[in-house]
Amino acid sequence: MGEVDRLGPVIILADAQMGENIGAAARVMHNFGLSRLRLVRPRDGWPNPAAEAMATRGAAAIIENTQVFETVEQATADVTRVFAATARERYMQKAVVEPEACARACAEEVTAGGLAAILFGSERAGLENDDVSLADTILTIPCNPEFTSLNLAQSVAILAYEWMKLAGGLSVARPSLMGARPARREDLFGLFAHLEAELDRVEFLYPPAKRPAMVRNIRNMWHRANLTYQDVQTIRGMITALTRTPKRRKPRDE
Amino acid sequence: MGEVDRLGPVIILADAQMGENIGAAARVMHNFGLSRLRLVRPRDGWPNPAAEAMATRGAAAIIENTQVFETVEQATADVTRVFAATARERYMQKAVVEPEACARACAEEVTAGGLAAILFGSERAGLENDDVSLADTILTIPCNPEFTSLNLAQSVAILAYEWMKLAGGLSVARPSLMGARPARREDLFGLFAHLEAELDRVEFLYPPAKRPAMVRNIRNMWHRANLTYQDVQTIRGMITALTRTPKRRKPRDE
Repeated sequence: MGEVDRLGPVIILADAQMGENIGAAARVMHNFGLSRLRLVRPRDGWPNPAAEAMATRGAAAIIENTQVFETVEQATADVTRVFAATARERYMQKAVVEPEACARACAEEVTAGGLAAILFGSERAGLENDDVSLADTILTIPCNPEFTSLNLAQSVAILAYEWMKLAGGLSVARPSLMGARPARREDLFGLFAHLEAELDRVEFLYPPAKRPAMVRNIRNMWHRANLTYQDVQTIRGMITALTRTPKRRKPRDE
Repeated sequence: MGEVDRLGPVIILADAQMGENIGAAARVMHNFGLSRLRLVRPRDGWPNPAAEAMATRGAAAIIENTQVFETVEQATADVTRVFAATARERYMQKAVVEPEACARACAEEVTAGGLAAILFGSERAGLENDDVSLADTILTIPCNPEFTSLNLAQSVAILAYEWMKLAGGLSVARPSLMGARPARREDLFGLFAHLEAELDRVEFLYPPAKRPAMVRNIRNMWHRANLTYQDVQTIRGMITALTRTPKRRKPRDE
Protein backbone atom coordinates (compact mmCIF):
# COMPACT_ATOMS: atom_id res chain seq x y z
CA MET A 1 0.00 0.00 0.00
CA GLY A 2 3.04 2.27 0.15
CA GLU A 3 2.21 4.52 -2.75
CA VAL A 4 -1.54 4.77 -2.22
CA ASP A 5 -0.86 5.59 1.37
CA ARG A 6 1.74 8.24 0.76
CA LEU A 7 -0.53 10.01 -1.68
CA GLY A 8 -3.74 9.84 0.32
CA PRO A 9 -5.50 12.80 1.86
CA VAL A 10 -5.08 13.64 5.54
CA ILE A 11 -8.21 12.96 7.61
CA ILE A 12 -8.93 15.65 10.19
CA LEU A 13 -11.55 15.10 12.90
CA ALA A 14 -12.57 18.33 14.64
CA ASP A 15 -14.26 18.18 18.06
CA ALA A 16 -14.69 14.40 17.96
CA GLN A 17 -16.60 13.29 21.05
CA MET A 18 -16.26 9.54 21.33
CA GLY A 19 -12.95 7.69 21.34
CA GLU A 20 -14.78 4.73 19.79
CA ASN A 21 -15.55 6.82 16.73
CA ILE A 22 -11.96 7.99 16.39
CA GLY A 23 -10.79 4.36 16.64
CA ALA A 24 -13.39 3.20 14.12
CA ALA A 25 -12.31 5.97 11.74
CA ALA A 26 -8.67 4.87 12.07
CA ARG A 27 -9.63 1.28 11.44
CA VAL A 28 -11.54 2.04 8.26
CA MET A 29 -8.77 4.36 7.07
CA HIS A 30 -6.46 1.36 7.30
CA ASN A 31 -9.03 -0.79 5.45
CA PHE A 32 -8.90 1.65 2.57
CA GLY A 33 -5.24 2.56 2.55
CA LEU A 34 -5.19 5.93 4.30
CA SER A 35 -2.89 6.53 7.22
CA ARG A 36 -2.66 10.15 8.30
CA LEU A 37 -5.07 11.14 11.04
CA ARG A 38 -5.21 14.52 12.78
CA LEU A 39 -7.46 15.59 15.63
CA VAL A 40 -8.55 19.06 16.61
CA ARG A 41 -9.81 19.57 20.20
CA PRO A 42 -10.79 15.92 20.88
CA ARG A 43 -13.36 16.12 23.69
CA ASP A 44 -11.80 13.41 25.87
CA GLY A 45 -8.17 14.39 25.28
CA TRP A 46 -5.47 12.27 23.74
CA PRO A 47 -4.32 9.47 23.91
CA ASN A 48 -7.71 7.84 24.39
CA PRO A 49 -8.00 4.16 25.44
CA ALA A 50 -11.43 3.78 23.77
CA ALA A 51 -9.89 4.81 20.45
CA GLU A 52 -7.03 2.36 20.90
CA ALA A 53 -9.45 -0.48 21.70
CA MET A 54 -11.37 0.06 18.44
CA ALA A 55 -8.29 0.36 16.23
CA THR A 56 -7.16 -3.21 15.68
CA ARG A 57 -3.94 -4.42 14.10
CA GLY A 58 -2.46 -2.08 11.47
CA ALA A 59 -4.73 0.73 12.58
CA ALA A 60 -2.85 0.88 15.89
CA ALA A 61 -0.01 2.56 14.00
CA ILE A 62 -2.44 5.20 12.75
CA ILE A 63 -3.58 5.93 16.31
CA GLU A 64 0.03 6.05 17.48
CA ASN A 65 0.97 8.58 14.81
CA THR A 66 -2.15 10.71 15.19
CA GLN A 67 -1.34 14.40 15.58
CA VAL A 68 -3.39 16.66 17.83
CA PHE A 69 -3.98 20.39 17.26
CA GLU A 70 -5.71 23.25 19.03
CA THR A 71 -7.33 24.71 15.94
CA VAL A 72 -8.31 23.77 12.41
CA GLU A 73 -5.96 26.50 11.19
CA GLN A 74 -3.02 24.71 12.79
CA ALA A 75 -4.15 21.27 11.65
CA THR A 76 -4.33 22.44 8.05
CA ALA A 77 -1.22 24.63 8.01
CA ASP A 78 0.77 22.38 5.64
CA VAL A 79 -2.26 21.44 3.55
CA THR A 80 -2.86 22.87 0.07
CA ARG A 81 -6.48 21.91 -0.35
CA VAL A 82 -9.16 21.35 2.29
CA PHE A 83 -12.55 19.73 1.85
CA ALA A 84 -15.12 20.28 4.61
CA ALA A 85 -17.55 17.37 5.01
CA THR A 86 -21.05 18.58 5.76
CA ALA A 87 -24.56 17.58 4.87
CA ARG A 88 -26.12 20.85 5.94
CA GLU A 89 -26.66 23.77 3.64
CA ARG A 90 -24.15 26.41 4.65
CA TYR A 91 -25.19 29.28 2.43
CA MET A 92 -21.56 29.76 1.52
CA GLN A 93 -20.42 30.42 -1.99
CA LYS A 94 -18.16 27.48 -2.22
CA ALA A 95 -17.81 24.61 -4.61
CA VAL A 96 -19.60 21.44 -3.51
CA VAL A 97 -18.35 17.99 -4.48
CA GLU A 98 -19.45 14.43 -3.78
CA PRO A 99 -17.01 11.76 -2.52
CA GLU A 100 -15.94 10.44 -5.91
CA ALA A 101 -15.05 13.88 -7.22
CA CYS A 102 -13.40 14.68 -3.90
CA ALA A 103 -11.11 11.65 -4.20
CA ARG A 104 -10.24 12.71 -7.75
CA ALA A 105 -9.46 16.23 -6.61
CA CYS A 106 -7.25 14.86 -3.82
CA ALA A 107 -5.32 12.82 -6.37
CA GLU A 108 -4.90 15.88 -8.59
CA GLU A 109 -3.66 17.84 -5.63
CA VAL A 110 -0.91 15.40 -4.69
CA THR A 111 0.03 14.93 -8.33
CA ALA A 112 0.57 18.67 -8.45
CA GLY A 113 2.86 18.41 -5.43
CA GLY A 114 0.29 19.51 -2.86
CA LEU A 115 -1.35 17.91 0.13
CA ALA A 116 -5.11 17.43 0.49
CA ALA A 117 -7.11 17.09 3.70
CA ILE A 118 -10.69 16.24 4.51
CA LEU A 119 -12.22 17.83 7.54
CA PHE A 120 -15.03 16.20 9.53
CA GLY A 121 -16.94 17.77 12.42
CA SER A 122 -18.32 16.42 15.70
CA GLU A 123 -20.81 13.58 15.98
CA ARG A 124 -23.44 15.85 17.49
CA ALA A 125 -23.33 18.98 15.38
CA GLY A 126 -20.92 18.51 12.50
CA LEU A 127 -18.55 21.32 11.61
CA GLU A 128 -18.78 24.84 12.95
CA ASN A 129 -19.40 27.46 10.28
CA ASP A 130 -16.04 29.03 11.14
CA ASP A 131 -14.26 25.78 10.40
CA VAL A 132 -16.19 25.29 7.17
CA SER A 133 -15.09 28.74 6.17
CA LEU A 134 -11.47 27.59 6.26
CA ALA A 135 -12.06 24.99 3.57
CA ASP A 136 -11.79 25.42 -0.19
CA THR A 137 -14.60 23.10 -1.03
CA ILE A 138 -17.59 21.45 0.61
CA LEU A 139 -17.82 17.68 0.50
CA THR A 140 -21.37 16.33 0.62
CA ILE A 141 -22.18 12.63 0.76
CA PRO A 142 -25.41 11.93 -1.13
CA CYS A 143 -28.01 10.78 1.39
CA ASN A 144 -31.67 10.12 1.95
CA PRO A 145 -32.95 13.71 2.31
CA GLU A 146 -35.06 12.55 5.25
CA PHE A 147 -32.01 11.35 7.20
CA THR A 148 -28.69 12.95 6.36
CA SER A 149 -26.98 12.40 9.71
CA LEU A 150 -24.21 9.93 8.91
CA ASN A 151 -22.16 8.26 11.61
CA LEU A 152 -18.70 9.87 11.78
CA ALA A 153 -16.68 6.71 11.05
CA GLN A 154 -19.03 5.83 8.22
CA SER A 155 -18.53 9.22 6.61
CA VAL A 156 -14.79 8.61 6.79
CA ALA A 157 -15.41 5.10 5.39
CA ILE A 158 -17.25 6.40 2.32
CA LEU A 159 -14.57 8.92 1.52
CA ALA A 160 -11.72 6.47 2.13
CA TYR A 161 -13.48 3.88 -0.01
CA GLU A 162 -13.72 6.34 -2.91
CA TRP A 163 -10.04 7.07 -2.46
CA MET A 164 -9.22 3.37 -2.56
CA LYS A 165 -11.31 2.87 -5.68
CA LEU A 166 -9.46 5.63 -7.43
CA ALA A 167 -5.97 5.06 -6.12
CA GLY A 168 -5.92 1.30 -6.06
CA GLY A 169 -5.87 0.93 -9.82
CA LEU A 170 -9.08 -1.02 -9.55
CA SER A 171 -9.60 -1.36 -13.24
CA VAL A 172 -8.08 -4.84 -13.02
CA ALA A 173 -11.07 -7.11 -12.64
CA ARG A 174 -10.53 -10.56 -11.26
CA PRO A 175 -11.23 -13.43 -13.61
CA SER A 176 -14.44 -15.11 -12.57
CA LEU A 177 -13.16 -18.59 -13.39
CA MET A 178 -10.22 -18.47 -11.01
CA GLY A 179 -7.71 -19.60 -13.59
CA ALA A 180 -9.65 -22.73 -14.55
CA ARG A 181 -9.49 -23.62 -18.24
CA PRO A 182 -12.59 -22.26 -19.98
CA ALA A 183 -14.54 -24.74 -22.07
CA ARG A 184 -13.70 -24.73 -25.77
CA ARG A 185 -16.48 -24.66 -28.26
CA GLU A 186 -15.74 -28.31 -29.08
CA ASP A 187 -16.24 -29.26 -25.42
CA LEU A 188 -19.59 -27.51 -25.38
CA PHE A 189 -20.68 -29.03 -28.66
CA GLY A 190 -19.83 -32.47 -27.29
CA LEU A 191 -22.03 -31.72 -24.30
CA PHE A 192 -24.89 -30.54 -26.52
CA ALA A 193 -24.72 -33.69 -28.66
CA HIS A 194 -24.58 -35.93 -25.60
CA LEU A 195 -27.49 -34.27 -23.79
CA GLU A 196 -29.67 -33.88 -26.85
CA ALA A 197 -29.20 -37.55 -27.80
CA GLU A 198 -30.28 -38.59 -24.31
CA LEU A 199 -33.23 -36.20 -24.36
CA ASP A 200 -34.29 -37.58 -27.74
CA ARG A 201 -34.01 -41.09 -26.37
CA VAL A 202 -36.39 -40.34 -23.53
CA GLU A 203 -38.61 -38.28 -25.83
CA PHE A 204 -38.22 -35.07 -23.87
CA LEU A 205 -37.76 -32.95 -27.01
CA TYR A 206 -41.33 -33.43 -28.11
CA PRO A 207 -43.31 -32.68 -30.26
CA PRO A 208 -40.89 -32.47 -33.21
CA ALA A 209 -42.15 -29.04 -34.31
CA LYS A 210 -40.99 -27.56 -31.00
CA ARG A 211 -37.66 -29.36 -30.90
CA PRO A 212 -35.52 -26.65 -32.54
CA ALA A 213 -36.66 -23.93 -30.10
CA MET A 214 -36.30 -26.24 -27.10
CA VAL A 215 -32.77 -27.15 -28.13
CA ARG A 216 -31.83 -23.49 -28.56
CA ASN A 217 -33.18 -22.58 -25.15
CA ILE A 218 -31.30 -25.39 -23.45
CA ARG A 219 -28.06 -24.52 -25.24
CA ASN A 220 -28.46 -20.88 -24.25
CA MET A 221 -28.60 -21.79 -20.58
CA TRP A 222 -25.24 -23.49 -20.88
CA HIS A 223 -23.76 -20.56 -22.76
CA ARG A 224 -24.82 -18.21 -20.03
CA ALA A 225 -23.10 -20.38 -17.43
CA ASN A 226 -19.67 -19.59 -18.87
CA LEU A 227 -18.57 -23.18 -18.24
CA THR A 228 -15.07 -24.43 -17.66
CA TYR A 229 -13.66 -27.56 -19.23
CA GLN A 230 -14.09 -29.31 -15.88
CA ASP A 231 -17.73 -28.18 -15.61
CA VAL A 232 -18.45 -29.79 -18.96
CA GLN A 233 -16.90 -33.06 -17.78
CA THR A 234 -18.99 -32.89 -14.58
CA ILE A 235 -22.22 -32.27 -16.46
CA ARG A 236 -21.52 -35.10 -18.87
CA GLY A 237 -20.77 -37.37 -15.92
CA MET A 238 -24.09 -36.40 -14.36
CA ILE A 239 -25.97 -37.15 -17.56
CA THR A 240 -24.29 -40.55 -17.87
CA ALA A 241 -25.01 -41.34 -14.23
CA LEU A 242 -28.63 -40.24 -14.42
CA THR A 243 -29.33 -42.36 -17.46
CA ARG A 244 -27.99 -45.67 -16.19
CA THR A 245 -29.02 -47.99 -13.40
CA PRO A 246 -26.65 -47.73 -10.45
CA LYS A 247 -24.42 -50.74 -10.06
CA ARG A 248 -22.94 -50.51 -6.58
CA ARG A 249 -26.17 -51.30 -4.77
CA LYS A 250 -29.89 -51.50 -5.28
CA PRO A 251 -31.48 -48.11 -5.92
CA ARG A 252 -33.67 -46.69 -3.16
CA ASP A 253 -37.40 -46.86 -3.50
CA GLU A 254 -38.88 -43.69 -4.93
CA MET B 1 -37.36 8.20 -1.08
CA GLY B 2 -40.40 6.07 -2.04
CA GLU B 3 -39.13 4.86 -5.38
CA VAL B 4 -35.48 4.36 -4.48
CA ASP B 5 -36.59 2.47 -1.44
CA ARG B 6 -39.03 0.19 -3.19
CA LEU B 7 -36.38 -0.76 -5.71
CA GLY B 8 -33.48 -1.30 -3.35
CA PRO B 9 -31.86 -4.62 -2.56
CA VAL B 10 -32.74 -6.55 0.57
CA ILE B 11 -29.91 -6.60 3.12
CA ILE B 12 -29.45 -10.00 4.80
CA LEU B 13 -27.19 -10.35 7.83
CA ALA B 14 -26.35 -13.98 8.59
CA ASP B 15 -25.10 -14.95 12.06
CA ALA B 16 -24.72 -11.33 13.19
CA GLN B 17 -23.25 -11.28 16.68
CA MET B 18 -23.70 -7.77 18.06
CA GLY B 19 -27.00 -5.97 18.24
CA GLU B 20 -25.04 -2.72 17.94
CA ASN B 21 -23.86 -3.74 14.49
CA ILE B 22 -27.36 -4.68 13.38
CA GLY B 23 -28.60 -1.30 14.58
CA ALA B 24 -25.73 0.54 12.89
CA ALA B 25 -26.47 -1.32 9.65
CA ALA B 26 -30.14 -0.32 9.86
CA ARG B 27 -29.18 3.28 10.51
CA VAL B 28 -26.88 3.52 7.51
CA MET B 29 -29.44 1.74 5.34
CA HIS B 30 -31.82 4.55 6.21
CA ASN B 31 -29.09 7.12 5.45
CA PHE B 32 -28.82 5.70 1.97
CA GLY B 33 -32.43 4.90 1.21
CA LEU B 34 -32.61 1.16 1.80
CA SER B 35 -35.27 -0.29 4.09
CA ARG B 36 -35.56 -4.06 3.93
CA LEU B 37 -33.47 -5.89 6.51
CA ARG B 38 -33.48 -9.64 7.12
CA LEU B 39 -31.58 -11.59 9.75
CA VAL B 40 -30.57 -15.23 9.73
CA ARG B 41 -29.74 -16.85 13.09
CA PRO B 42 -28.92 -13.60 14.98
CA ARG B 43 -26.71 -14.71 17.88
CA ASP B 44 -28.57 -12.82 20.59
CA GLY B 45 -32.07 -13.46 19.28
CA TRP B 46 -34.61 -10.90 18.17
CA PRO B 47 -35.83 -8.31 19.07
CA ASN B 48 -32.54 -6.96 20.42
CA PRO B 49 -32.47 -3.80 22.59
CA ALA B 50 -28.88 -2.99 21.56
CA ALA B 51 -29.97 -2.89 17.93
CA GLU B 52 -32.92 -0.66 18.77
CA ALA B 53 -30.66 1.74 20.70
CA MET B 54 -28.35 2.21 17.69
CA ALA B 55 -31.11 2.69 15.14
CA THR B 56 -32.26 6.24 15.61
CA ARG B 57 -35.25 7.97 14.09
CA GLY B 58 -36.34 6.62 10.70
CA ALA B 59 -34.19 3.54 11.15
CA ALA B 60 -36.47 2.40 13.97
CA ALA B 61 -39.01 1.43 11.33
CA ILE B 62 -36.39 -0.72 9.63
CA ILE B 63 -35.69 -2.53 12.90
CA GLU B 64 -39.40 -2.93 13.52
CA ASN B 65 -39.95 -4.51 10.12
CA THR B 66 -36.87 -6.71 10.20
CA GLN B 67 -37.63 -10.31 9.32
CA VAL B 68 -35.83 -13.21 10.99
CA PHE B 69 -35.15 -16.58 9.38
CA GLU B 70 -33.61 -19.91 10.37
CA THR B 71 -31.60 -20.39 7.19
CA VAL B 72 -30.22 -18.41 4.28
CA GLU B 73 -32.38 -20.56 2.00
CA GLN B 74 -35.52 -19.30 3.74
CA ALA B 75 -34.28 -15.70 3.84
CA THR B 76 -33.68 -15.72 0.08
CA ALA B 77 -36.70 -17.77 -1.03
CA ASP B 78 -38.42 -14.87 -2.84
CA VAL B 79 -35.17 -13.34 -4.11
CA THR B 80 -34.05 -13.65 -7.72
CA ARG B 81 -30.43 -12.61 -7.39
CA VAL B 82 -28.12 -12.96 -4.39
CA PHE B 83 -24.73 -11.33 -3.86
CA ALA B 84 -22.52 -12.77 -1.12
CA ALA B 85 -20.21 -10.19 0.45
CA THR B 86 -16.83 -11.67 1.21
CA ALA B 87 -13.25 -10.51 1.16
CA ARG B 88 -11.77 -13.99 1.38
CA GLU B 89 -10.87 -16.01 -1.66
CA ARG B 90 -13.42 -18.82 -1.86
CA TYR B 91 -12.04 -20.82 -4.76
CA MET B 92 -15.50 -20.94 -6.20
CA GLN B 93 -16.12 -20.38 -9.85
CA LYS B 94 -18.49 -17.52 -9.46
CA ALA B 95 -18.57 -14.03 -10.86
CA VAL B 96 -17.01 -11.40 -8.59
CA VAL B 97 -18.23 -7.79 -8.57
CA GLU B 98 -17.30 -4.67 -6.68
CA PRO B 99 -19.91 -2.47 -4.98
CA GLU B 100 -20.59 -0.14 -7.88
CA ALA B 101 -21.22 -2.98 -10.32
CA CYS B 102 -23.26 -4.74 -7.63
CA ALA B 103 -25.55 -1.74 -7.25
CA ARG B 104 -25.94 -1.59 -11.03
CA ALA B 105 -26.80 -5.29 -11.17
CA CYS B 106 -29.37 -4.82 -8.38
CA ALA B 107 -31.01 -2.07 -10.39
CA GLU B 108 -31.12 -4.27 -13.49
CA GLU B 109 -32.64 -7.06 -11.48
CA VAL B 110 -35.52 -4.97 -10.17
CA THR B 111 -36.07 -3.42 -13.57
CA ALA B 112 -36.49 -6.96 -14.90
CA GLY B 113 -39.14 -7.62 -12.26
CA GLY B 114 -36.85 -9.47 -9.83
CA LEU B 115 -35.66 -8.90 -6.29
CA ALA B 116 -31.99 -8.60 -5.34
CA ALA B 117 -30.41 -9.31 -1.97
CA ILE B 118 -26.99 -8.79 -0.49
CA LEU B 119 -25.83 -11.32 2.04
CA PHE B 120 -23.31 -10.43 4.77
CA GLY B 121 -21.74 -12.88 7.23
CA SER B 122 -20.81 -12.66 10.88
CA GLU B 123 -18.43 -10.07 12.34
CA ARG B 124 -15.98 -12.74 13.39
CA ALA B 125 -15.77 -15.08 10.44
CA GLY B 126 -17.82 -13.73 7.56
CA LEU B 127 -19.98 -16.08 5.54
CA GLU B 128 -19.88 -19.86 5.70
CA ASN B 129 -18.90 -21.53 2.42
CA ASP B 130 -22.29 -23.23 2.29
CA ASP B 131 -24.03 -19.87 2.46
CA VAL B 132 -21.74 -18.43 -0.22
CA SER B 133 -22.67 -21.39 -2.41
CA LEU B 134 -26.30 -20.23 -2.37
CA ALA B 135 -25.41 -16.91 -4.01
CA ASP B 136 -25.11 -16.09 -7.69
CA THR B 137 -22.27 -13.67 -7.37
CA ILE B 138 -19.55 -12.66 -4.95
CA LEU B 139 -19.39 -9.04 -3.84
CA THR B 140 -15.92 -7.88 -2.86
CA ILE B 141 -15.21 -4.44 -1.49
CA PRO B 142 -11.79 -3.25 -2.66
CA CYS B 143 -9.53 -2.99 0.38
CA ASN B 144 -5.99 -2.59 1.55
CA PRO B 145 -4.68 -6.13 0.93
CA GLU B 146 -2.98 -5.97 4.31
CA PHE B 147 -6.26 -5.39 6.13
CA THR B 148 -9.42 -6.58 4.44
CA SER B 149 -11.52 -7.07 7.56
CA LEU B 150 -14.22 -4.42 7.26
CA ASN B 151 -16.63 -3.65 10.06
CA LEU B 152 -20.05 -5.16 9.29
CA ALA B 153 -22.03 -1.91 9.34
CA GLN B 154 -19.35 -0.22 7.23
CA SER B 155 -19.58 -2.93 4.60
CA VAL B 156 -23.33 -2.31 4.50
CA ALA B 157 -22.60 1.43 4.35
CA ILE B 158 -20.38 1.12 1.27
CA LEU B 159 -22.88 -0.97 -0.59
CA ALA B 160 -25.84 1.22 0.41
CA TYR B 161 -23.86 4.32 -0.60
CA GLU B 162 -23.23 2.90 -4.06
CA TRP B 163 -26.93 2.10 -4.29
CA MET B 164 -27.80 5.67 -3.36
CA LYS B 165 -25.35 7.08 -5.91
CA LEU B 166 -26.90 5.00 -8.63
CA ALA B 167 -30.53 5.14 -7.56
CA GLY B 168 -30.45 8.89 -7.18
CA GLY B 169 -30.32 8.96 -10.96
CA LEU B 170 -32.15 5.71 -11.71
CA SER B 171 -33.76 5.87 -15.10
CA VAL B 172 -34.17 3.00 -17.50
CA ALA B 173 -31.94 0.01 -16.89
CA ARG B 174 -31.76 -2.79 -19.40
CA PRO B 175 -33.50 -6.03 -18.53
CA SER B 176 -30.98 -8.82 -18.88
CA LEU B 177 -33.47 -11.65 -19.38
CA MET B 178 -35.52 -10.07 -22.15
CA GLY B 179 -38.57 -9.73 -19.98
CA ALA B 180 -38.68 -13.34 -18.77
CA ARG B 181 -39.42 -13.87 -15.10
CA PRO B 182 -36.14 -14.47 -13.25
CA ALA B 183 -35.97 -17.60 -11.11
CA ARG B 184 -36.61 -17.09 -7.42
CA ARG B 185 -34.26 -18.67 -4.92
CA GLU B 186 -36.98 -21.15 -3.98
CA ASP B 187 -37.18 -22.27 -7.59
CA LEU B 188 -33.43 -22.78 -7.67
CA PHE B 189 -33.37 -24.53 -4.31
CA GLY B 190 -36.08 -26.86 -5.58
CA LEU B 191 -33.88 -27.64 -8.56
CA PHE B 192 -30.87 -28.26 -6.32
CA ALA B 193 -32.83 -30.63 -4.10
CA HIS B 194 -34.27 -32.48 -7.09
CA LEU B 195 -30.96 -32.89 -8.91
CA GLU B 196 -28.96 -33.75 -5.82
CA ALA B 197 -31.50 -36.40 -4.76
CA GLU B 198 -31.24 -38.00 -8.20
CA LEU B 199 -27.45 -37.79 -8.18
CA ASP B 200 -27.40 -39.40 -4.74
CA ARG B 201 -29.72 -42.11 -5.97
CA VAL B 202 -27.35 -43.03 -8.79
CA GLU B 203 -24.33 -42.61 -6.51
CA PHE B 204 -22.79 -39.86 -8.61
CA LEU B 205 -21.92 -37.75 -5.56
CA TYR B 206 -19.32 -40.20 -4.39
CA PRO B 207 -17.24 -40.66 -2.23
CA PRO B 208 -19.08 -38.95 0.66
CA ALA B 209 -16.02 -36.89 1.64
CA LYS B 210 -16.11 -35.15 -1.72
CA ARG B 211 -19.87 -34.65 -1.78
CA PRO B 212 -19.98 -31.12 -0.29
CA ALA B 213 -17.47 -29.70 -2.77
CA MET B 214 -19.12 -31.49 -5.68
CA VAL B 215 -22.51 -30.10 -4.67
CA ARG B 216 -21.11 -26.58 -4.39
CA ASN B 217 -19.49 -26.78 -7.81
CA ILE B 218 -22.67 -28.01 -9.44
CA ARG B 219 -24.75 -25.29 -7.76
CA ASN B 220 -22.29 -22.67 -8.90
CA MET B 221 -22.73 -23.69 -12.52
CA TRP B 222 -26.45 -23.04 -12.24
CA HIS B 223 -25.90 -19.72 -10.52
CA ARG B 224 -23.71 -18.55 -13.34
CA ALA B 225 -26.43 -19.36 -15.84
CA ASN B 226 -28.73 -16.63 -14.44
CA LEU B 227 -31.73 -18.90 -14.95
CA THR B 228 -35.29 -17.81 -15.57
CA TYR B 229 -38.27 -19.50 -13.93
CA GLN B 230 -38.95 -21.26 -17.22
CA ASP B 231 -35.34 -22.49 -17.43
CA VAL B 232 -35.68 -24.11 -14.02
CA GLN B 233 -38.85 -25.87 -15.12
CA THR B 234 -37.10 -27.06 -18.28
CA ILE B 235 -34.12 -28.42 -16.38
CA ARG B 236 -36.32 -30.20 -13.88
CA GLY B 237 -38.27 -31.66 -16.76
CA MET B 238 -35.02 -32.91 -18.29
CA ILE B 239 -33.94 -34.52 -15.04
CA THR B 240 -37.28 -36.22 -14.63
CA ALA B 241 -37.19 -37.42 -18.22
CA LEU B 242 -33.62 -38.66 -18.01
CA THR B 243 -34.28 -40.67 -14.87
CA ARG B 244 -37.33 -42.58 -16.02
CA THR B 245 -37.92 -45.19 -18.68
CA PRO B 246 -39.70 -43.73 -21.70
CA LYS B 247 -43.25 -44.90 -22.08
CA ARG B 248 -44.39 -43.85 -25.52
CA ARG B 249 -42.18 -46.25 -27.42
CA LYS B 250 -39.15 -48.44 -27.11
CA PRO B 251 -35.91 -46.48 -26.69
CA ARG B 252 -33.56 -46.42 -29.63
CA ASP B 253 -30.53 -48.65 -29.55
CA GLU B 254 -27.41 -46.84 -28.42
